[in-house]
Amino acid sequence: MSKHSATDTDPRAALAALGLTLPKVKSDPNYANVRTTANGQIYVSGQLPYSQGVLAAKGVVGEDGAMGTEVSITVAREMMVQATLNGLAVAADAAGGIEKLRIVQIQVFVASAHGFGRQSDVADAGSDLLVEVFGKPGRHARTAVGVVGLPKNSPVEMQMICETRI
Amino acid sequence: MSKHSATDTDPRAALAALGLTLPKVKSDPNYANVRTTANGQIYVSGQLPYSQGVLAAKGVVGEDGAMGTEVSITVAREMMVQATLNGLAVAADAAGGIEKLRIVQIQVFVASAHGFGRQSDVADAGSDLLVEVFGKPGRHARTAVGVVGLPKNSPVEMQMICETRI
Amino acid sequence: MSKHSATDTDPRAALAALGLTLPKVKSDPNYANVRTTANGQIYVSGQLPYSQGVLAAKGVVGEDGAMGTEVSITVAREMMVQATLNGLAVAADAAGGIEKLRIVQIQVFVASAHGFGRQSDVADAGSDLLVEVFGKPGRHARTAVGVVGLPKNSPVEMQMICETRI
Repeated sequence: MSKHSATDTDPRAALAALGLTLPKVKSDPNYANVRTTANGQIYVSGQLPYSQGVLAAKGVVGEDGAMGTEVSITVAREMMVQATLNGLAVAADAAGGIEKLRIVQIQVFVASAHGFGRQSDVADAGSDLLVEVFGKPGRHARTAVGVVGLPKNSPVEMQMICETRI
Repeated sequence: MSKHSATDTDPRAALAALGLTLPKVKSDPNYANVRTTANGQIYVSGQLPYSQGVLAAKGVVGEDGAMGTEVSITVAREMMVQATLNGLAVAADAAGGIEKLRIVQIQVFVASAHGFGRQSDVADAGSDLLVEVFGKPGRHARTAVGVVGLPKNSPVEMQMICETRI
Repeated sequence: MSKHSATDTDPRAALAALGLTLPKVKSDPNYANVRTTANGQIYVSGQLPYSQGVLAAKGVVGEDGAMGTEVSITVAREMMVQATLNGLAVAADAAGGIEKLRIVQIQVFVASAHGFGRQSDVADAGSDLLVEVFGKPGRHARTAVGVVGLPKNSPVEMQMICETRI
């Protein structure tokens, strides 16, 4: 499937073709996984890349193989995909189905070693997934930054704003 | 009062029961404390935990008692409550009363020592306050991250998006 | 022109009077420069201060003249102006003209040396530009934070949300 298809895709079929499924995401007692506004926007809380309750890696991301770096770009990209799937899962729940989502914006926070400047390479893994799954409704505004640390020492965190497709 | 009351609370009474009052928040000449959109969303600028013009502590947050850490989690949580109160004060002004607010999203930035991964524990102090004060309309999406530093070397900063309750 | 004019300005004339022009901004294959919502909000992706394809400086910002600091506040402020111009350019394209924009919120990320607490001084350069160019419709909510690093080792990144003026 073209990453930049001009026509919409069937998000369920696209996910299945990629061998991916939407996970169950636990809710937090202190806040909501997602908040829907009166005018139809869906705010998704910052998602950590939990997979079945486990983070595949912890620490800061740096150039692959750099000394003192705990997480490679390769692993961070895999975790970015997981965080994106988690975000899609809770957004789809709120919208009443993944096919009703239009992605508006994502913010990507990458726990970064000093001097690391490839946060975009990590974020791309999530952006590409969104466009592969949705086609044009998956195109989004994006901000990616490098932070000193994240909750549970996660290497990546991803926040998303969606709206309901009309 | 239950933190997760299924029914709404009276925000003014809830604040008073907690012994809290909404502070006066100075405006900045360079930007607005709050911006209201045509469709009724209220964007609150990043709030520092000023109390009567003073920050209770400065520096980065780390595990309580860790060497070189300037601010404990305990103090950071108190400052998170103050930043949340400041945000509520300017949002309430914009909405025409705190009882008209519905909280949509908060972003919490915690100035963090290297290796610190408990940003959620700091952010929880603000999330819990919002639910205690508002009940269900206080439930919100949340993103918490660890940054290397904040304006005025504040340990915490909190941004909020609200909407007007219908 | 007064920075806090009570009346609106002509954004095109104001830009010209400042000797500034809106640049052409490249789009990224992985995401969109801007995303417009059904209810008229314009989400601008995080903008780096590229000028004709080049970043004027790279690294973290610190007190002017501090040892080990790569980027001075003075240079960072110039780059903040450039990032703001880039954001205005893509937002104006989306709105059908700069005169149709109303600024809602900016988020400013400053790559910061340890202990640096003057992110607001960097962000002010962008906030002041917005008010000089637009007058009241340029007033905005703002959040400024210090991050450990940014894509391409840029010293600043600026994200913006606008809406269409009615």
